[in-house]
Amino acid sequence: MKKLLFLLMLIGISLYGQEKDSLMLQKIYTSALTQSQCYTWLDSLSNKIGARLSGSKGAALAVAYTQKEMKALGLDRVYLQEVMVPKWVRGPKETAYALVGQQKIEFPICALGLSVGTSKNGLTAPIIEVKSIEEMIALGDRIKGKIVFYNRPMNPEFIETFQAYGSCVDQRSSGAREAGILGALGVIVRSMNLRLDDLPHTGMTNYKDIPAAQRIPAAAISTRGAEQLSALIKAHQNLSFYFNQQCVYEGDVLSYNVIGEIKGSEHPENIMVVGGHLDSWDLGDGAQDDGAGCVQSIAVLELLKKLHYTPKNTLRVVLFMNEENGIKGALKYGEEAQLKKENHILAMESDSGGFSPRGFSIDASEAQYAKIVGWKSLFEPYLIHVFQKGHSGTDVEPIASENIVKVGLYPDSQRYFDYHHAGNDRFDAVNKRELELGAATMTALVYLFDKYSMP
Amino acid sequence: MKKLLFLLMLIGISLYGQEKDSLMLQKIYTSALTQSQCYTWLDSLSNKIGARLSGSKGAALAVAYTQKEMKALGLDRVYLQEVMVPKWVRGPKETAYALVGQQKIEFPICALGLSVGTSKNGLTAPIIEVKSIEEMIALGDRIKGKIVFYNRPMNPEFIETFQAYGSCVDQRSSGAREAGILGALGVIVRSMNLRLDDLPHTGMTNYKDIPAAQRIPAAAISTRGAEQLSALIKAHQNLSFYFNQQCVYEGDVLSYNVIGEIKGSEHPENIMVVGGHLDSWDLGDGAQDDGAGCVQSIAVLELLKKLHYTPKNTLRVVLFMNEENGIKGALKYGEEAQLKKENHILAMESDSGGFSPRGFSIDASEAQYAKIVGWKSLFEPYLIHVFQKGHSGTDVEPIASENIVKVGLYPDSQRYFDYHHAGNDRFDAVNKRELELGAATMTALVYLFDKYSMP
Repeated sequence: MKKLLFLLMLIGISLYGQEKDSLMLQKIYTSALTQSQCYTWLDSLSNKIGARLSGSKGAALAVAYTQKEMKALGLDRVYLQEVMVPKWVRGPKETAYALVGQQKIEFPICALGLSVGTSKNGLTAPIIEVKSIEEMIALGDRIKGKIVFYNRPMNPEFIETFQAYGSCVDQRSSGAREAGILGALGVIVRSMNLRLDDLPHTGMTNYKDIPAAQRIPAAAISTRGAEQLSALIKAHQNLSFYFNQQCVYEGDVLSYNVIGEIKGSEHPENIMVVGGHLDSWDLGDGAQDDGAGCVQSIAVLELLKKLHYTPKNTLRVVLFMNEENGIKGALKYGEEAQLKKENHILAMESDSGGFSPRGFSIDASEAQYAKIVGWKSLFEPYLIHVFQKGHSGTDVEPIASENIVKVGLYPDSQRYFDYHHAGNDRFDAVNKRELELGAATMTALVYLFDKYSMP
Repeated sequence: MKKLLFLLMLIGISLYGQEKDSLMLQKIYTSALTQSQCYTWLDSLSNKIGARLSGSKGAALAVAYTQKEMKALGLDRVYLQEVMVPKWVRGPKETAYALVGQQKIEFPICALGLSVGTSKNGLTAPIIEVKSIEEMIALGDRIKGKIVFYNRPMNPEFIETFQAYGSCVDQRSSGAREAGILGALGVIVRSMNLRLDDLPHTGMTNYKDIPAAQRIPAAAISTRGAEQLSALIKAHQNLSFYFNQQCVYEGDVLSYNVIGEIKGSEHPENIMVVGGHLDSWDLGDGAQDDGAGCVQSIAVLELLKKLHYTPKNTLRVVLFMNEENGIKGALKYGEEAQLKKENHILAMESDSGGFSPRGFSIDASEAQYAKIVGWKSLFEPYLIHVFQKGHSGTDVEPIASENIVKVGLYPDSQRYFDYHHAGNDRFDAVNKRELELGAATMTALVYLFDKYSMP
């Protein structure tokens, strides 16, 4: 009988705990939808500051602005972490055309990030189309002296667009390096975009350590441009293509990760990180990539403060610099954490856009994963269903604490590559409620994780 | 031992069946994302035809266009069902201002659907703000001779925006009737929109059977306009408001539901309906409401034909006319079905926008509901998680067959009321993939339902 009573009491406590958690989640979501400043912050980042490429004036303004806003929240500590980042400058608007007889048929292009420029007068050469790096390599000598046009589209059959991206992006990241080694003169890459439109999408190309002489200029062409160019190539043997880009790498400059924290009430030595990256590409204003993730991350601390929840473990927001073309901020943060022997127990990143949150992508031990999945029913009223194992985020990757749980916010991905790295990645592409629901979803997970801290 | 073998065989058959179904769903989603014409159809409906208010030229063109496209699919039968619909015409762009001293402060408004117009010279009267019909009624005589301004915002705390809409829309649908009975001269209603912007959102107002003398003109004001007007009312006692709208009801005219079907191979007498409504409001081009639902519904038949799946039961697509201001098409369809003693076993509607599908809202018996929920795991790879009991759709409501299962496609709702009934409900607000995924989700449910037909 005593045992039974004890058991009933335990069940009672557990139900009561669930009830309390479910109430807390309700408060978190309500607060996010009615009181969070995250949309206003994003408005400022996007419309007052704008593009924030590493080393740019925008990036510096964004550091100052987010530091100021974090201080206004009354966090226990707000500080900057120095990091050297590459300064790459696009230069004047790029131009490109195909030459058909005397006719110049123009195409919308943009230089890939960290690409070298063409000469002042641009580059003209016969253009040759391939669907993959492998196909290009197989052509051997035939690509010498040519411009290589990588034109493998994102595969629409994938349900998750990030998979379509992953199966395609090698053309952009390695295409110029591989073609340069084989003697090509330049590279044009079909934009990583599932739509047919006129916007070129930039993104980093990586020469790694090949010698300067083999570094050839690389540009992205819009998807519609890619289709038209492909048709021209089929119609005209030895089609001649011209492009001109005056982008230049100006060396490394000082920049910062922006960090704010609430000190843990019980285990200040345990650190939970939430973050996004503060830098963006230069074509749009980086509202989706990754202004959204930054303001959502700050909102996690904002919301818990508003709800007078003091975390047991230290809660830290990190706005990483230079995710787009170097990952220097993330590497620096990871290094310093190791040097200081900081014990990170959680690192959550939002860098998949500010769309309706669907769940989480979780990188953790089986036991830890199971524990998080155990909270699933608490999230269902908020239409959060996905608790999948997978990649968390580029910026939290270098954090190397043992037993750390890494989580990526998993928003709906269908529209993401419509904007990704393109000129239309702007504030008006972000829906206020979707952004806020994402912030709430992150906050809810941090709350549960903190309360039921992992071993 | 025999029993065990038999059991193993049964389990084997069942697993094999699951495997086959899961393969079929994969084919359906792949086909939708790579081969469906639904986005092209929506392009035509939105950009070539445009707004399709009942009785308008656009509505007539849409009837002809969808009938032609269905015929091109080689359906077994394509036909029109006659229905009389109200023809209401907005007239020239409405105008509105508040009078502060000699200053006219203008506001973006639009007449509510089926509203009467003001006199030629417009209506000027003191304006009084209320948050609800109840509050207005409580004011009694004080609203006589006034313009009533209903200004209760949609409540952002609801996770599902349709709930926020439901708790608010009485102001628009009944506000003019109730105020007219009490002697008000006109009504201004805050737009049903969760965003703050400058777009007035129309929608039907319903006088029911009150006498003509009590029918007062009603208009919607943009949400930002509502905030500004409210501030003005607080600042100026007896603020005078003017609005002018020359909308007029021109009587009932002949229109059509557009119907196409594939005859069932085993039970042609059993009918499965998929549908949306072909009419739209007149301010945008009705791409989200409900061009999306129409083309998704046609795509269900298109995809099953492409995949050479002949349904056992008759599969019928119905594009209902006049959902927005009368529901005459749906009522007519329901009546005729009853007259012909047609046995409808399924009716599925898509009328919640063409956004990323999240699941279904299901109106069925417990046993039927449980059977559908049993298919949940088949949908998970496509991020379809919601199988909730609830309202299916306005157009399938009048179908009265016994044991019918009614289903509404349940897309992500966060952005829906940004566009609903407003000038920005346009083609570019619809994402191709989201539209296609919705079509695939409907097709998959129809396939499973047909294969495992309900008793």
